[in-house]
Amino acid sequence: MKRHLVFLAILLFIFSGSLCFAQTNQPVKEDFKPATSNQPGKEYPMVNSEGRVRVSILAPGAQKVQLDISAVKYDLIKDENGVWTGESEPQDEGFHYYQLWIDGAAVPDPNSLYFYGASRWGSGIEIPAHDQEFYELKDVPHGQISEQLYFSKSNNGMRRCFVYTPPDYNKDTEKRYPVLYLQHGGGEDETGWPNQGRTNLIMDNLIADGKAKPFIIVMDNGSWRMPGQDRPPRPGDRSAGTWPPAGWADGFKKTMIEDIIPMIDENYRTIADQQHRGMAGLSMGGMQTRVITLANPEVFSYVGLFSGGSITMDDINNSPNFKEKVKLVFVSYGSRELENGKTRFGGNPEADTEALKKIGINTHYYVSPLTAHEWQSWRRSLHEFAQLLFKD
Amino acid sequence: MKRHLVFLAILLFIFSGSLCFAQTNQPVKEDFKPATSNQPGKEYPMVNSEGRVRVSILAPGAQKVQLDISAVKYDLIKDENGVWTGESEPQDEGFHYYQLWIDGAAVPDPNSLYFYGASRWGSGIEIPAHDQEFYELKDVPHGQISEQLYFSKSNNGMRRCFVYTPPDYNKDTEKRYPVLYLQHGGGEDETGWPNQGRTNLIMDNLIADGKAKPFIIVMDNGSWRMPGQDRPPRPGDRSAGTWPPAGWADGFKKTMIEDIIPMIDENYRTIADQQHRGMAGLSMGGMQTRVITLANPEVFSYVGLFSGGSITMDDINNSPNFKEKVKLVFVSYGSRELENGKTRFGGNPEADTEALKKIGINTHYYVSPLTAHEWQSWRRSLHEFAQLLFKD
Repeated sequence: MKRHLVFLAILLFIFSGSLCFAQTNQPVKEDFKPATSNQPGKEYPMVNSEGRVRVSILAPGAQKVQLDISAVKYDLIKDENGVWTGESEPQDEGFHYYQLWIDGAAVPDPNSLYFYGASRWGSGIEIPAHDQEFYELKDVPHGQISEQLYFSKSNNGMRRCFVYTPPDYNKDTEKRYPVLYLQHGGGEDETGWPNQGRTNLIMDNLIADGKAKPFIIVMDNGSWRMPGQDRPPRPGDRSAGTWPPAGWADGFKKTMIEDIIPMIDENYRTIADQQHRGMAGLSMGGMQTRVITLANPEVFSYVGLFSGGSITMDDINNSPNFKEKVKLVFVSYGSRELENGKTRFGGNPEADTEALKKIGINTHYYVSPLTAHEWQSWRRSLHEFAQLLFKD
Repeated sequence: MKRHLVFLAILLFIFSGSLCFAQTNQPVKEDFKPATSNQPGKEYPMVNSEGRVRVSILAPGAQKVQLDISAVKYDLIKDENGVWTGESEPQDEGFHYYQLWIDGAAVPDPNSLYFYGASRWGSGIEIPAHDQEFYELKDVPHGQISEQLYFSKSNNGMRRCFVYTPPDYNKDTEKRYPVLYLQHGGGEDETGWPNQGRTNLIMDNLIADGKAKPFIIVMDNGSWRMPGQDRPPRPGDRSAGTWPPAGWADGFKKTMIEDIIPMIDENYRTIADQQHRGMAGLSMGGMQTRVITLANPEVFSYVGLFSGGSITMDDINNSPNFKEKVKLVFVSYGSRELENGKTRFGGNPEADTEALKKIGINTHYYVSPLTAHEWQSWRRSLHEFAQLLFKD
């Protein structure tokens, strides 16, 4: 009997080992298709049904070529024609930044479209998502994304923002609209929401389905630097003291309140009051939204924080009019950003939003399934948030 | 005496040799500055007062790195830290596409902004120009560039164009405007005029100076393929027969007449008649403009061909209403495209325009000084052409 048990244990050990082996070394599924984020006519990069990314580049004289995606570098293999090819482990659904390394040089993949993130214009790739329908280009009425150049007094220079106007904006030239101010994250800029964020397609599809009210969206550049600093602050900076650092948000707050909002109200058919104005942002943009809306509840009614903190009871107590003035607080994260409901900085966004609900603030909490601190979390967050806006 | 002559001849020979040496190897002027076309915060690429381009890239494991600009490859030199640096011969004023070669891989420079041309998104660089003031960003009233998505029946699919609306378009929502349809060249797309063409800045500055009437500009994608062909035709194809090939322009003509113009007239406040509509284009876009306007003089009043052929007396004789209907023909080239006034395909644009003038057609001919088949020629052409449009 004892021998049988030992035998069974050995069998189970071998079996579990082979299971494990099968899992990490299972053959790559050969159903790769060109990514939708490729340059016109380019076959590579490709993505398979597992979400693996396969890249390919001609580099006959190179010694070492790597694919660098989601903070992992994968060695490519050279064929007899000098073409290097290889693929990554499966990636999460949605959009990812990536780059190639050629003999120690970090360069964009010449086959992909380029996006601004990680403080540079570089390669990005779309992994098909089970819910991608909500941000696909369809034959529905389309709004426009317009590039708006303007002079900013508080910055003493020219600035740029992008403005989404809904499909009927140019048809009925009397109608006025609410406005959402929507901010990108650290290392990104005003092109993030229009490009990788797919803001216009998300809104066009929601409006066509009657799921969102038409409103204007303003996407400006929030990369404000503290005087004497060479870059905007990052979440990691909190180890050095309080977060955000004292006075940090004041620069962009001034630009937002004194320059951007008046310029938009002057140049677009807005409903220029607190009840018809919202602000939201992702990551750094969420932190800016938190600071700016808590300081100015008489300016904004709707508040959205995507992977960028939450509003605590302390915040409410320190912002006298916030509870009475603000109509909606929306907080979201990607599920992979949370552990036991907590963020890596120890915040508990669900508990914070429950506390706000208890004192009567209209609060929503959303977790994007199986996504990290990346654009798929933020596309889904906008899609959820937009359906709650300007409903009364 | 003979000996003296021989001596003199030897001296002259040495002198002329050293002169020649000095000319081709004169020291590079060390007054390089970061290019205005760099990504934010990037020091390289740089340009000096001679118009030389200096690039720099970290590639410690590479064997050979080259800068590839204006069809010449320049070897870079590696320092002890693995940084490769080097510069080109002086370049013409204005915008040029370029790329890097790293051990046989052609890649974009990770430090430059990216532009669509040469059938790919890749690096571009601005060489300062003596007349760059006309396309600089200034604190003047700015129009907008809007991305317009629409369904095209003739292509049975979604298409995209960019639309410039002048500074006062959003202020006076009753006013209606003339429209110019402005096309890119072969291997480019609808982003060419808004990005490297600087269309909005050229127009904003002209309008601020009172030199051009405000009008709408529509920039669509003219890269139409002949059925069964894998790419749009190129000028070099003419060696295979007549140019343009029979039936070639019909694809884009149909899209322009049946889809683009009605869509614009429906969605923008246009003056939707022949007297207030123009078409222009560069290179392939000029050839399309020629074919489409000759076939439809009842649709367009103003015609601009930039480095894209000219209208001949034969054309006029074959287009019955062109002479009566069209108010302006504008033809331009870069001076480096011409030899003794003729194009490399044997055309004589100046003679053609003189012939049109003689029969009473309002014709203008412009040559951009010291520029080739490149964007500086076309920026200047738009700048000249725009001042002649919709004046009555």
